[in-house]
Amino acid sequence: MATLTLTQANTIISAAFKHAEKLSLAPLTVVVLDPGGHMIALQRQDGSSILRCEIATGKAFGALALGLGSRKVSAMAIERPHFLEGLSGVSGGRIVPVPGGVLVRDSEGAIIGAVGITGDTSDNDEACAIAGIEAADLTADGG
Amino acid sequence: MATLTLTQANTIISAAFKHAEKLSLAPLTVVVLDPGGHMIALQRQDGSSILRCEIATGKAFGALALGLGSRKVSAMAIERPHFLEGLSGVSGGRIVPVPGGVLVRDSEGAIIGAVGITGDTSDNDEACAIAGIEAADLTADGG
Amino acid sequence: MATLTLTQANTIISAAFKHAEKLSLAPLTVVVLDPGGHMIALQRQDGSSILRCEIATGKAFGALALGLGSRKVSAMAIERPHFLEGLSGVSGGRIVPVPGGVLVRDSEGAIIGAVGITGDTSDNDEACAIAGIEAADLTADGG
Amino acid sequence: MATLTLTQANTIISAAFKHAEKLSLAPLTVVVLDPGGHMIALQRQDGSSILRCEIATGKAFGALALGLGSRKVSAMAIERPHFLEGLSGVSGGRIVPVPGGVLVRDSEGAIIGAVGITGDTSDNDEACAIAGIEAADLTADGG
Repeated sequence: MATLTLTQANTIISAAFKHAEKLSLAPLTVVVLDPGGHMIALQRQDGSSILRCEIATGKAFGALALGLGSRKVSAMAIERPHFLEGLSGVSGGRIVPVPGGVLVRDSEGAIIGAVGITGDTSDNDEACAIAGIEAADLTADGG
Repeated sequence: MATLTLTQANTIISAAFKHAEKLSLAPLTVVVLDPGGHMIALQRQDGSSILRCEIATGKAFGALALGLGSRKVSAMAIERPHFLEGLSGVSGGRIVPVPGGVLVRDSEGAIIGAVGITGDTSDNDEACAIAGIEAADLTADGG
Repeated sequence: MATLTLTQANTIISAAFKHAEKLSLAPLTVVVLDPGGHMIALQRQDGSSILRCEIATGKAFGALALGLGSRKVSAMAIERPHFLEGLSGVSGGRIVPVPGGVLVRDSEGAIIGAVGITGDTSDNDEACAIAGIEAADLTADGG
Repeated sequence: MATLTLTQANTIISAAFKHAEKLSLAPLTVVVLDPGGHMIALQRQDGSSILRCEIATGKAFGALALGLGSRKVSAMAIERPHFLEGLSGVSGGRIVPVPGGVLVRDSEGAIIGAVGITGDTSDNDEACAIAGIEAADLTADGG
């Protein structure tokens, strides 16, 4: 298995929304990227604001960029803001360094994609990403 | 009615894929944008190449940009390449001027979003967009 | 097999240079990208001019962007210059639509990377890419 | 001597990888730039994440940009973040201000290129760059 399929991506998104509903979260945007950082699927719930697609994608892309869940990217950004500024520059401004960008690994540990969620608190966003990935019988690595 | 809902966007995408399957088309990428040009939903089928999200979005964004289906944007680009060059510039390189970007109108004719499809011929891409929009009981305006 | 390894990429580059030497070509730049468009390896021969890295990468990226060898991307650009202009825009100016960007496929036909070469004529560039890929026992798809 | 040759660049990369193997480091990406900041050679080891080419290049480019090893660029960024912000802007977002970008000097002290490495800790990245440069009988200037 090299990349998530569209079917798996849709399963992840549905399960993430179901988890959010159970927790009565604010409207979310969920994106699933392939290992190269290209979108497989995205859904923005009614009422989720207009930059949410870019934010969700920036969390997931940041995770893939460094091979680390975005919770770790966030910690690096706090510790070394100058490194994050450099990263942001060389990525063309594509990284959002806060929790909610979660790597998807297959049973051997290989990265097969990433999920990014935004709309509620970063911790809740991340919890929904993990719930979605696990519902697809895959391994979540939030950082 | 001011904008497509996520439910409507998902209906459009599913119906577009169903139409493509009936015609045995190549793998497609389908995006649905709100009237402000922001993504509501996107799905890229397995095997659809890595720039397809940007291409589908560029068709739909071009349609919204001018308030014209991308078939008309395409005609303008052929007739007046200097206009397209200017448009491309002022949009930050966000317009793909070929058929397959279709406006979605409500029963009063107001624009409530746009659908962009890429992966097969531009004509087939557009036909799937129209089929998807009509399956959601909305009005398609391909240009 | 999901992506070319670094070892395979290095084999491709060495074999491409060997082919070029046999044909007494001008100094070349050769790049190998993974299926997501990210660089695995690049070598620029002494005397190859300063934008050659970007040109080689633009050929290979264009092939991956559309899932077509860059000879076909080139044909599309000639036939429909407005489409290429749109593509160039949505890719952030990353596509060079001339022969010399060759897809690498595994034995099942899946895309596992792309090779881009520039420095001599486009036809010679492409011939070296194909020679390199075949020396690594992989399938070349120039378009 | 005005610039590193491709042969020297390849020697540097091989020696850097050998040093990393001896220290059992994480997968690395190594780039060698000419004095104008243009790539001569790059190799990304299997498992090195997708933005590593840009990060390695950003370290080496930052060193050339100021004529200082990136350890000194890093110190400046920490002391005067507003200066780094300006630098990032005027460079078009091409600078990553952390150790691991090392200038290559000839026997007279002239800058003939730069090496950038990323993948392990910044200190280990830099040590591999220095080892690579010294293996090519050249002088390393990490900052």
